[in-house]
Amino acid sequence: MPIPILHCDRNSKDQFSRFLSGAREDLSTATTRILPILEDVRTKGDAALLSYTERFDGIKLSHVTIDPRTIQTNIDPKIKEAFLRAKTNIEAFHLAQKRESWSKVIDGNRLGVKFTPVPSLAVYAPGGKALYPSSVLMGIIPAKIAGVPSIQLITPPQKEGIPEILIWLAQILEIDQIVTVGGAQGIAAAAYGTESVPKSEFIVGPGNAYVAAAKSYLSGQGLIGIDSPAGPSEVCIIADGSANPKWIACDMLSQAEHGEDSSAILLTTDSNLAKQVSEELELAFVERPKRLEMKQKAIYENSSILVFPNLEDCIWFSNELAPEHLEIQTKDNEAVFSKIEHAGSVFLGPYSPVAMGDYISGTNHILPTARGSRIYSSLGVDTFLKRVTFQEVTKESLETLYPFVKLMSELEGLDEEHGTSVKVRTEGHK
Amino acid sequence: MPIPILHCDRNSKDQFSRFLSGAREDLSTATTRILPILEDVRTKGDAALLSYTERFDGIKLSHVTIDPRTIQTNIDPKIKEAFLRAKTNIEAFHLAQKRESWSKVIDGNRLGVKFTPVPSLAVYAPGGKALYPSSVLMGIIPAKIAGVPSIQLITPPQKEGIPEILIWLAQILEIDQIVTVGGAQGIAAAAYGTESVPKSEFIVGPGNAYVAAAKSYLSGQGLIGIDSPAGPSEVCIIADGSANPKWIACDMLSQAEHGEDSSAILLTTDSNLAKQVSEELELAFVERPKRLEMKQKAIYENSSILVFPNLEDCIWFSNELAPEHLEIQTKDNEAVFSKIEHAGSVFLGPYSPVAMGDYISGTNHILPTARGSRIYSSLGVDTFLKRVTFQEVTKESLETLYPFVKLMSELEGLDEEHGTSVKVRTEGHK
Repeated sequence: MPIPILHCDRNSKDQFSRFLSGAREDLSTATTRILPILEDVRTKGDAALLSYTERFDGIKLSHVTIDPRTIQTNIDPKIKEAFLRAKTNIEAFHLAQKRESWSKVIDGNRLGVKFTPVPSLAVYAPGGKALYPSSVLMGIIPAKIAGVPSIQLITPPQKEGIPEILIWLAQILEIDQIVTVGGAQGIAAAAYGTESVPKSEFIVGPGNAYVAAAKSYLSGQGLIGIDSPAGPSEVCIIADGSANPKWIACDMLSQAEHGEDSSAILLTTDSNLAKQVSEELELAFVERPKRLEMKQKAIYENSSILVFPNLEDCIWFSNELAPEHLEIQTKDNEAVFSKIEHAGSVFLGPYSPVAMGDYISGTNHILPTARGSRIYSSLGVDTFLKRVTFQEVTKESLETLYPFVKLMSELEGLDEEHGTSVKVRTEGHK
Repeated sequence: MPIPILHCDRNSKDQFSRFLSGAREDLSTATTRILPILEDVRTKGDAALLSYTERFDGIKLSHVTIDPRTIQTNIDPKIKEAFLRAKTNIEAFHLAQKRESWSKVIDGNRLGVKFTPVPSLAVYAPGGKALYPSSVLMGIIPAKIAGVPSIQLITPPQKEGIPEILIWLAQILEIDQIVTVGGAQGIAAAAYGTESVPKSEFIVGPGNAYVAAAKSYLSGQGLIGIDSPAGPSEVCIIADGSANPKWIACDMLSQAEHGEDSSAILLTTDSNLAKQVSEELELAFVERPKRLEMKQKAIYENSSILVFPNLEDCIWFSNELAPEHLEIQTKDNEAVFSKIEHAGSVFLGPYSPVAMGDYISGTNHILPTARGSRIYSSLGVDTFLKRVTFQEVTKESLETLYPFVKLMSELEGLDEEHGTSVKVRTEGHK
C-alpha cells in the first residue's frame, strides 16, 4: 500500500481536487462546548479559572499566574546554546522586517503612515506531549521587535510544574508573567482579562481544538486579533530529476511526523523520481518505525505524488494549493520561485529542508495552512504593527480642493455637513 | 437638550466607560437569516442569484453580470474632474506604500521576503440611497497597486439600471465585470463563485447588515479575507483653547450626518471651548436642518464633550478609544500626534477636516471602527499583499546547525524524522 502516484495535467480535477478542498478542522462541536466556559471566565474571572483548572487538569492552583523571574531553572547548556542560536537568527530575520514611518507631500498636503504596535499580546504554549518551546520564540520575538509593550505567556499547568524550558525562555525573552491556565479558559482569561490576568488584544500560538475554537470565536467577535486560522501541517515539494529521492522522502516524513492528518505532496515531472521516492518512503518505514501508524496514515491517506508533464504545471498546481511549506528542488530553483505566488514559507535548493526553518534558520514557523497563504502571511513583525495614516492639509490646498469635495459629497447625499466642514474653513479663521 | 459636557479625569470610568465598550452592530439575527441564502448560492449558483434578486429587489435579471466597457456613460465633466483628482491623489498615496521584496544573509543562509498579491478581489458598492462611489476608488486602487490580477465590482441592481457613475468608475479603473446582485446573495456569489461569477478570495466595501453578516461569516469560515469588521462611523477630536469651536462643531456634525448611531467625541482641556462648541452645534441645527433628527440623535445620544485636566489625559483617552478618525487641533499638533498609538486615520491641524480624507486628499477612508484600530489598520496596499518568506540554506550552514536542530527536535519529540531530514544531508549527495 505505497503512497499514491497520480499522473496529472491541469485538467485532472478528479484526481487532485481533494487536495484543493482546503479543509480546516471542524470547530463547531468544540465551539459549542467552550461558549459557557468563555462566559464563566468573563463574568467570574479568576474564580472560574481556578475551578476549570481543577475540573479539567485535576490541579488545585493557588494563583493563576507565576513570575518567571522568581524561579530557578537548570537547563542543559547545550540546549541553551541551541535556543540562543535560534533566537539570534529569528531576531535578525525579524529585525530586517521593521518598518519606518514616512510622510510625503501629495497635492500640496503632507500625507503619511506611522507604524505603531498592537497594545498587548498573549502567546499560547501547549503543554504535555505537545510541548513546542520553539513556537514560543516564534510568537514572542516578532512582537518584541514590533514594540508590543505587554506580552504574557499562557500555558496549561502540569502536575510536575511548568516545564523549566518555558520558564527559561520567558526569562531570556523578558516576559514577566506566565498564566498557568490552559484550554479555552486560558484563552478567555487573556481575551477578557481577569483580576490577575491583564486583557490581551492579540493571541497567537498553537493549541488543541478548544484553544483553536476559543481563538476563532473571540476573533470573530472582534475582541482579539489572532494568527491565521489553524489547520493540519502540510508540505508541497516541487522537484525534477535532479533531486535526491531519499532527501525528499525524509522531508515528506518530517511533515508526517506532526500527525496523521498532516499532508505531503510531491509535484514532479519525473516518473522515475516518483518511483524512487515511494521506495524510499517504504524503506524509511522499516528503518525508522517510531510513530509508524501515524506516519503511514499521513503518507498513504493524505499525501500523494503528482506527476505533471512539465514544471509549469507543477508551479500552477502549487499556486492552486498555496501550501504552508514549499520546497523547490530543481535545476533552476530561482526560475521556479519567481513564478510562485502563494506559499507560507519557501525552502530553496537541496540543503533547505523544512526542519531548518522549523527551528533554527530564522524564518517564522507560524504559518497559514489549508490554502490560507492565498490571502494570509506567516507571523512576522507586520502581524503586530498597524499603519496609522495621517494628513496635514494646508489652507491653500483646502481652498483648491473644496469644489471637488462639494461635488462628490453632493453626489453621495452628504453635502450638508461634509461640504460645510470644508467650506467654513475657506471663509477665514474665527 | 444640548450635547453632554462631562468633566473627567482618568478615573472617571463611570462617565466615559460607555464610549469604550467598542460595541459593534449585533449581526446574529442577520446571520441566521443569510445562512440559507449562502447555501442556496453555493449549491445552485446563478439560478439562486436570479431568484433572490427577483424576490428581494423585485427585478428580473437576464444576466447577473455586465461588462462596463460595453456601456455608454454621460457624466458631468465637473464630476469627472473631481473623481479623477481624487483618483490621482489616492494613487499617489498608495503607490508610496508599495514594498520591495528583499533578502539578506543570516547565519550563512539567504533569508528573505517576497511580496505577492492576493489572487482576487470583489469590491461591494451599496446601491440606492447609500451610493458611495468614493468607496469604489478606496477599495479598488490599493488592490490594483498591489497587483491583484482579478478584481470585480458587486452592486445591487436598480430599476433604473446600474448608476452611471459606477459604470464610469469601473471603466477608468479598468474593471471588466460588474456583478449586479446585492445583499448576502451578492457576497455569496463572489465568495463561492458561480457559473458567471468567478470566486474572489477577498471581499471589501461597505454594506447593510446582511452584507456585513455574510462577509463576517464567510471570513470566519476561512473562505475569504475581508476589511476589518464594520461598525458605526466615529470621530474623536483633541483640541485646546487655540481651536476654532465652529469648525469643530462642523466636523462633529459631518460625522453625525452618516447616521444616528454615529459618534463624535471632543476631548479638550478648555471648558470655554466645550461651551462654545455646544452652542455652535445648537446654532448649526437651526441653520442646517437637513436630516435634523438623525444628526441630533447622533450628537445628543452617542456623542459627548469630555473636559480633561490636561492634554496628556486627552491623549490617554484617545488611545483607549482608538477612534476610526482622529482630529488634532492644538497649539502643538506634532507633540500630541507623537503620543498617539491607536487611530485609523489622523487629521492634523485646523485645515484638515475628516471630509478631506473622505474624498480627495489621498488617504483611504475604509477604516477600522469600534476600537478596532488597536489591532487593525486602514485599507491599504498591505491589505492585498502577502509576505512569502523564503530561505536557501548552504551545505556548510546545514552541517554547522544540525546539532542544534537535533537537540531542539528531540526536546519536542520530533527528532526521528525532523532530525533525520537534516542529518541525511550532512552525509553527502546521493
